[in-house]
Amino acid sequence: MKKIINDPFEVVDEMLEGILLAHPGHLQRTGETGRALVRRGAPVPGKVGIATGGGSGHLPVFLGYVGPGLADGVAVGNVFSSPGPQPMLDCIRAVDAGKGVLLLFGNYQGDIMNFEAAAEMARADGIDVRIAIVNDDVPSAPRERIAERRGVAGLFYAYKLVGARADEAVSLDELERTAREVIRNTRSVGVALAPCTVPAAGRPTFEIADDEMEFGMGIHGEPGTERSRLKSADAIAAAMVETLLADLPFVAGDEVSVLVNGLGATPPTELYVLYRRVHALLLEHGLRIDRSFVGEYATSLEMAGCSLTLLKLDDERKRLLHAPAFSPFLLQKS
Amino acid sequence: MKKIINDPFEVVDEMLEGILLAHPGHLQRTGETGRALVRRGAPVPGKVGIATGGGSGHLPVFLGYVGPGLADGVAVGNVFSSPGPQPMLDCIRAVDAGKGVLLLFGNYQGDIMNFEAAAEMARADGIDVRIAIVNDDVPSAPRERIAERRGVAGLFYAYKLVGARADEAVSLDELERTAREVIRNTRSVGVALAPCTVPAAGRPTFEIADDEMEFGMGIHGEPGTERSRLKSADAIAAAMVETLLADLPFVAGDEVSVLVNGLGATPPTELYVLYRRVHALLLEHGLRIDRSFVGEYATSLEMAGCSLTLLKLDDERKRLLHAPAFSPFLLQKS
Repeated sequence: MKKIINDPFEVVDEMLEGILLAHPGHLQRTGETGRALVRRGAPVPGKVGIATGGGSGHLPVFLGYVGPGLADGVAVGNVFSSPGPQPMLDCIRAVDAGKGVLLLFGNYQGDIMNFEAAAEMARADGIDVRIAIVNDDVPSAPRERIAERRGVAGLFYAYKLVGARADEAVSLDELERTAREVIRNTRSVGVALAPCTVPAAGRPTFEIADDEMEFGMGIHGEPGTERSRLKSADAIAAAMVETLLADLPFVAGDEVSVLVNGLGATPPTELYVLYRRVHALLLEHGLRIDRSFVGEYATSLEMAGCSLTLLKLDDERKRLLHAPAFSPFLLQKS
Repeated sequence: MKKIINDPFEVVDEMLEGILLAHPGHLQRTGETGRALVRRGAPVPGKVGIATGGGSGHLPVFLGYVGPGLADGVAVGNVFSSPGPQPMLDCIRAVDAGKGVLLLFGNYQGDIMNFEAAAEMARADGIDVRIAIVNDDVPSAPRERIAERRGVAGLFYAYKLVGARADEAVSLDELERTAREVIRNTRSVGVALAPCTVPAAGRPTFEIADDEMEFGMGIHGEPGTERSRLKSADAIAAAMVETLLADLPFVAGDEVSVLVNGLGATPPTELYVLYRRVHALLLEHGLRIDRSFVGEYATSLEMAGCSLTLLKLDDERKRLLHAPAFSPFLLQKS
């Protein structure tokens, strides 16, 4: 295991210390666990709170999406491991301004169990809590079992758009509706070329030959739908676009935002080579592209590979996509 | 070689196509080579132009630092290979608004030779051209031969501050002075854990054992000053801080900006674990920290490792550091 760390069991806490030191004035801890962080100034008066959370190792997911125009608080788990109910409960309490709290997170059993427990405790305090679960990863389950799909890089769009909607001072009912609309219109697919190593485990999450790739693999190394020889960037782009366009479906004339996301070790050079073909294919299918994002938006430690996410736009989602937002991980505002 | 590419010899041109498609309205080509890019609207009236360039594979260096508040144009070479004089000459012509052009780039022989040739040709056209060479990499040469030091992640500060100074509508003389001040006050040191592979070469840039690291290695795999067993993050931080503080020197009471930069495959989690100790050590030395940057600012394809850069601040440099700037690689302005 070749990592720039100290004690493998202290990685998450030392990372959090580093983040709080590097970006003072942005996040602050709440509660006693050390694992609940909220944006400075939370709760924001007049605004529904948004809380999120999940396992570490996916930066900027999750805590990189806390800030103005994004989520308000985050519960931080160990690497690839759900945080317990307590930090999530601490977040809910700290971000509630009396208008209720939306829990927005990815579709993983541990997170659901823990955040539902936290929601129950918060409701006992009289806080109105709703849950919206991001499930954008198309290959992780067929269309008939869409509720089983995992949440991956589509989380970026969920934070960006739902965060912007909350800034419009809407009710919790309305925010929940927006969240479901955004999630319903987001689709992702990933491909993995090389595994990562969880520090506390010390061995790679999976094995793969030097000439192989796995299509549809999850961001914790969950099995994909096809293992094959490594294909060209153009062939990978074609398989990804085909997978997504068939699923929603997206049809000619639709306007989309495109995210080509690196999983950790794949350089931007490769992401742009892939983007080039994705862009051409989407135009060939008659789609319009409103705004594209290329870079690391949801990672898996040092995994090699990438994902493609499409967000289908309408006037509301387009307005929310373009709204201002800030976090040290998303913007380097100068 | 496990990469998401098509033809290894087309990677740079396909990457450029992807970048131009993904971020329309930001950059445009100039000249006939396809390898000279300038920001839309160049030249900017009343402003000295800033042109840069170098080999590919280091994104966001170099072309990611072209935009408002940054450089105006860039010549793009093949991976780890200098562009020829022609694209640089095309850039100089396209960014000159009559106030002259500063060439700002890293200290590599190929770039110097080609950009000096371009400068000569531009001067023959009557354009006033000056050259400022970034040489921040401390371990690459001893203090007595400082002019031999390579340029690495300190390029980020050079673009950011010199770009901001040019926006203040100063003369070429004054901009050149600022550039030399910024360069003189910037110091970097890197550590490599694993090599990268240049697509057209197809083999790793160097060999290193599973339990080894190399201190002081350059961003093209140039040899460093010490190969050792992999050390802890805290030990690496201590060696890096010691190397930089002794060199300028930085003294108690100085205010600095800190950049912890990932070389490609090293996840933000590790960069923040390292930052945590760097921050503590700088405070122990009596330094004040104005603003910190943690992430990928100057990469080496999928190399594993990181670098630390310190910029010593004064009132002018602090003002320039905080000035607005935009590029799709630096800010995701919404």
